[in-house]
Amino acid sequence: MNFLSDTTAPAHPALLASLTAANSGYAASYGNDAITTELKARLSEVFATDLELVLTTSGTASNALALSVLCPPHGMILCHDEAHIHRDERGAPEFFSGGAKLLPLAGEHAKIDPGELERALNQWPQDFVHAPPPCALSISNLNESGCAYSPTELTALTGRAKSKALNIHFDGARFANALVSSGESAASMSWQSGADILCLGATKNGALGAEAILLFGNARRHLPELQARQKRSGHMGPKARYIAAQMLAWLHDDLWLDLARAANTSAAEIANTLRKAGAEIVHPVDGNEVFVRLDVEVARQLRSAGAGFYQWPDGSARFVASWSTTDNDLKALEDALGG
Amino acid sequence: MNFLSDTTAPAHPALLASLTAANSGYAASYGNDAITTELKARLSEVFATDLELVLTTSGTASNALALSVLCPPHGMILCHDEAHIHRDERGAPEFFSGGAKLLPLAGEHAKIDPGELERALNQWPQDFVHAPPPCALSISNLNESGCAYSPTELTALTGRAKSKALNIHFDGARFANALVSSGESAASMSWQSGADILCLGATKNGALGAEAILLFGNARRHLPELQARQKRSGHMGPKARYIAAQMLAWLHDDLWLDLARAANTSAAEIANTLRKAGAEIVHPVDGNEVFVRLDVEVARQLRSAGAGFYQWPDGSARFVASWSTTDNDLKALEDALGG
Amino acid sequence: MNFLSDTTAPAHPALLASLTAANSGYAASYGNDAITTELKARLSEVFATDLELVLTTSGTASNALALSVLCPPHGMILCHDEAHIHRDERGAPEFFSGGAKLLPLAGEHAKIDPGELERALNQWPQDFVHAPPPCALSISNLNESGCAYSPTELTALTGRAKSKALNIHFDGARFANALVSSGESAASMSWQSGADILCLGATKNGALGAEAILLFGNARRHLPELQARQKRSGHMGPKARYIAAQMLAWLHDDLWLDLARAANTSAAEIANTLRKAGAEIVHPVDGNEVFVRLDVEVARQLRSAGAGFYQWPDGSARFVASWSTTDNDLKALEDALGG
Amino acid sequence: MNFLSDTTAPAHPALLASLTAANSGYAASYGNDAITTELKARLSEVFATDLELVLTTSGTASNALALSVLCPPHGMILCHDEAHIHRDERGAPEFFSGGAKLLPLAGEHAKIDPGELERALNQWPQDFVHAPPPCALSISNLNESGCAYSPTELTALTGRAKSKALNIHFDGARFANALVSSGESAASMSWQSGADILCLGATKNGALGAEAILLFGNARRHLPELQARQKRSGHMGPKARYIAAQMLAWLHDDLWLDLARAANTSAAEIANTLRKAGAEIVHPVDGNEVFVRLDVEVARQLRSAGAGFYQWPDGSARFVASWSTTDNDLKALEDALGG
Repeated sequence: MNFLSDTTAPAHPALLASLTAANSGYAASYGNDAITTELKARLSEVFATDLELVLTTSGTASNALALSVLCPPHGMILCHDEAHIHRDERGAPEFFSGGAKLLPLAGEHAKIDPGELERALNQWPQDFVHAPPPCALSISNLNESGCAYSPTELTALTGRAKSKALNIHFDGARFANALVSSGESAASMSWQSGADILCLGATKNGALGAEAILLFGNARRHLPELQARQKRSGHMGPKARYIAAQMLAWLHDDLWLDLARAANTSAAEIANTLRKAGAEIVHPVDGNEVFVRLDVEVARQLRSAGAGFYQWPDGSARFVASWSTTDNDLKALEDALGG
Repeated sequence: MNFLSDTTAPAHPALLASLTAANSGYAASYGNDAITTELKARLSEVFATDLELVLTTSGTASNALALSVLCPPHGMILCHDEAHIHRDERGAPEFFSGGAKLLPLAGEHAKIDPGELERALNQWPQDFVHAPPPCALSISNLNESGCAYSPTELTALTGRAKSKALNIHFDGARFANALVSSGESAASMSWQSGADILCLGATKNGALGAEAILLFGNARRHLPELQARQKRSGHMGPKARYIAAQMLAWLHDDLWLDLARAANTSAAEIANTLRKAGAEIVHPVDGNEVFVRLDVEVARQLRSAGAGFYQWPDGSARFVASWSTTDNDLKALEDALGG
Repeated sequence: MNFLSDTTAPAHPALLASLTAANSGYAASYGNDAITTELKARLSEVFATDLELVLTTSGTASNALALSVLCPPHGMILCHDEAHIHRDERGAPEFFSGGAKLLPLAGEHAKIDPGELERALNQWPQDFVHAPPPCALSISNLNESGCAYSPTELTALTGRAKSKALNIHFDGARFANALVSSGESAASMSWQSGADILCLGATKNGALGAEAILLFGNARRHLPELQARQKRSGHMGPKARYIAAQMLAWLHDDLWLDLARAANTSAAEIANTLRKAGAEIVHPVDGNEVFVRLDVEVARQLRSAGAGFYQWPDGSARFVASWSTTDNDLKALEDALGG
Repeated sequence: MNFLSDTTAPAHPALLASLTAANSGYAASYGNDAITTELKARLSEVFATDLELVLTTSGTASNALALSVLCPPHGMILCHDEAHIHRDERGAPEFFSGGAKLLPLAGEHAKIDPGELERALNQWPQDFVHAPPPCALSISNLNESGCAYSPTELTALTGRAKSKALNIHFDGARFANALVSSGESAASMSWQSGADILCLGATKNGALGAEAILLFGNARRHLPELQARQKRSGHMGPKARYIAAQMLAWLHDDLWLDLARAANTSAAEIANTLRKAGAEIVHPVDGNEVFVRLDVEVARQLRSAGAGFYQWPDGSARFVASWSTTDNDLKALEDALGG
């Protein structure tokens, strides 16, 4: 019963098979290989638009690289107070951007409150030399409380931000989970909702380590600078074919959505099981994460039965399902609570 | 006949098999897994000393991370003018260190001339507030001209640098190739020759993407800061077991040395073939790289026969052999020149 | 009636006279002159302790330089949400520190709420590699709402922070104003209240441009690094005698306290006048700044009478008195309101 | 006999008088004052072109700020190996630019050799993602060996650099000295010779601390970014009127040229005196600096007679004259050598 994180799960066998298939003969280094080219074309189909592509092996790197071309050192990035880029990336955005400021915004269920965005835009004007102006807005979807923004919610935030000339970054470490639960298309949940750059993560959803930075529309012009920063930060891996191969297999026949659906379904069952046991679910379960207020005694009981989960800073407990969560895991949780 | 770079070669099957074997069940994220622990113990044996370990997927990242704990932003890193960290990493050391200065030193065959080191140490004093003092010395072995320093050569440089309190970084992207050609032990070519940190690369020698930063002796105290920087720069991959698994297989039964030996042997044959054809070999061939002055007509002839190699900034041509270079490749080169 | 800022006021004649007196003959550059040496001795007397001294011409530079030796790039600086370092220095602390994170804390009257400090210390642990740990606490006294912390209040915050090994920075841009209103000694309001470094500002209190970074106790060990960063950031002025001369005259015969007292007294009168006119004073007036909620009509009336003051982001209006505020200014304000 | 540096000299009385005159009443902060406006107009006349202006108190700051808008973090700055920005600014350009690389170029008498520039431009291409491309060329005039480039020499370098889209920075810490010795106009030695930005220094030539960053032509578009960086680096002094006042007095009635002429004349006499005494002058004396190879015995004799001068890293001795060098100083030197 490992519900610690989707990063503790193994990779899906299809991705390993794709690695093995890719491992034949010579291939151009640094992203100039045929598999990467094929992946770019495939992603254009999936997102129904022309795009530019940069691959990394780390979501933190993807987010920070993306933000570094969307915000100058003397600018400011707006994000939710619970955002991974603010809480869990050891200051990576500050590092990659050359010292931009992150301004944490409040909002329930880790969703940025539109009023808070408005207040920040007013308090930090664009033309005041003494303070960093807001230059980028970053939105996580699926977010850090396991909730999904709808296209309408996204557009409300990004539209307001764009009216002040901010650039828009979407952290899609669990993008597939949000897609599946919302029934939206990849396009409607990304560039059609205002994203200039989407960081699309596969690592938490079946990959060994594969993340794609997708540049849409006008943001495609950032590609040369982004590649320079990718190289400079050690994220232009010499043997890029092995990242591209993972992601191609992941997209093939909508495997990525199937894996996300499996994880979401497991999460829904976890939530049900916990709820039945009397625990309070503290955020809507829109993806593969369940946040629950656990009685101390119950928490102890679960741990002694071998359940792995994290205590969250806000006092709740987080249970994460992955594509590899089994019926046995779910049954074991039920048993542990039933006991 | 792809002699462009050892990064165009595929990964060795044993490493892929190790990945597959590692891909079972849950594992702690971020380097806290059992495979990484096993790898650390194995590396301690190979290097015959206690050490600390940080894994990345990129040699550029490894070098820059290592240098960032060995040199403050207001300090200076001495390296050869041809050093990969100076020429080919898009300013990564400057970025990771927060703006340290790199001072390029001259020396034949990409080896730092001891007299040039002396001159730099004298011209840039330790206690002059107006200039960055030398804080770190970086040495590539195998170096960028394909030459190996001997322990005696290394110790002459590092001993002098240490007498001025400099920290020592070894760039070992092709460390195995230098080991094999010199017949030295891993210990004698690293910490016994003065290295505080060795960046040990497997990616150019059979891995998909696996690099180890090894901290020796007192430099082990840098581990917490190095991990903070690793996280901050997006190089603390969540699923570290897949890097560790590659490297364990690579070290197993001295596979890493066998692969390097194969590459070195192929390089020696390439050099012979080129020499016989009348070309001038411009640097000693101590590893898997051959630098040669090619007649324009010969170069054209080779390219039209399908040979891949790089034109080097100094006018020479670089041929790189890898573990996967075949007898057919060598024969094809001979034929192309014989034609 | 210029109540815009104490930075719009002229310099006190005694400081100009001191400049002129200093302008004779040769003097060692970069702070090695006799006047700087004398100033350091004088400051040790004033603060009743040994200290180290670095001079700049800018409070923003002083704060950012101080913070850059108290917090690593991968650490976090705690400060009030209204802090000048967060709101009004264009990301200088992020720049000088190499990308440290600033965490804004709430609290009435721009004083950090001890409960908020506690919450931050708990939410951001010291040993979690994924997030920047709190490394420094920055406190402004006089603060950005014109309020003074007492030594008891300071010690409550700094004591708790020190128990978690945080370093302590005091922003003393208006330190003299806080001293005068509290009746405390320079020592009790700085190192005895936990400050490792105090940025002591004279520019807002009679100088042309003179700021001192004072290192107390163990923090004196940071001097060499601080000087390196001072030079590197262009703040080691070649002709430092002209900064030192200003500050010596400023300290002479407690002129600095006299000037602050004059400004504070004027501010108290401004507050009285505004209060009498029915305006609500929104923060305690502990120094030379008055924040008031102004009726729109009254504000217009004042501006048309020639009064200069700033509209503050929170909706209040800020009136700042300086050493050079005259009785005529105060009378004119009264008249404008009386009208 | 203080020939250590022009920064050890006092300020010219006219500049102090201007400070005193400026010290009356209120003035807008941060460069929005009337004196700064007047200065900008005056500089436009002197340089015979529209320009934008940013003031600082430090030449290091001016150079680094200028370079930070002319070169991205992932770019490279070409300069002479003896350049102040490379040798004597503690890595300020690396800091302000966010980690750009400085590439030192050779050339006699601290003048960049056009062949070396050519070689660098060829070795470091514009479109190679693995290495920082040359983005800016920095030229000191008067240079660090006391030599002046002619407009022809300047244009040869800047024209070639501009053909590769490099931006051009001139370090004019001793610009007036070069103007006077060459007989050229301010325009012909700056924007007409290719400068995008000139850092014009007064501190070494009669000011207390006053430096102007001048943006010409298209480079004027960098003003907003430059101001953001000026603020962020603590160089937007609140009471800017005191810097502007110095510089206005300095330009008034060509005082700046008179002061430079006096210094140059003294330097010529110093050179004559030393030459007569048998010492070898190692660089043309085009300004106020004399570099000479001194017999050890003669050096000792001079020092014991009270002469101050610096031993230079290349083995020569540097004598610097300033506007305040007196006939007595020159006579004393003659006497010391005559003894």
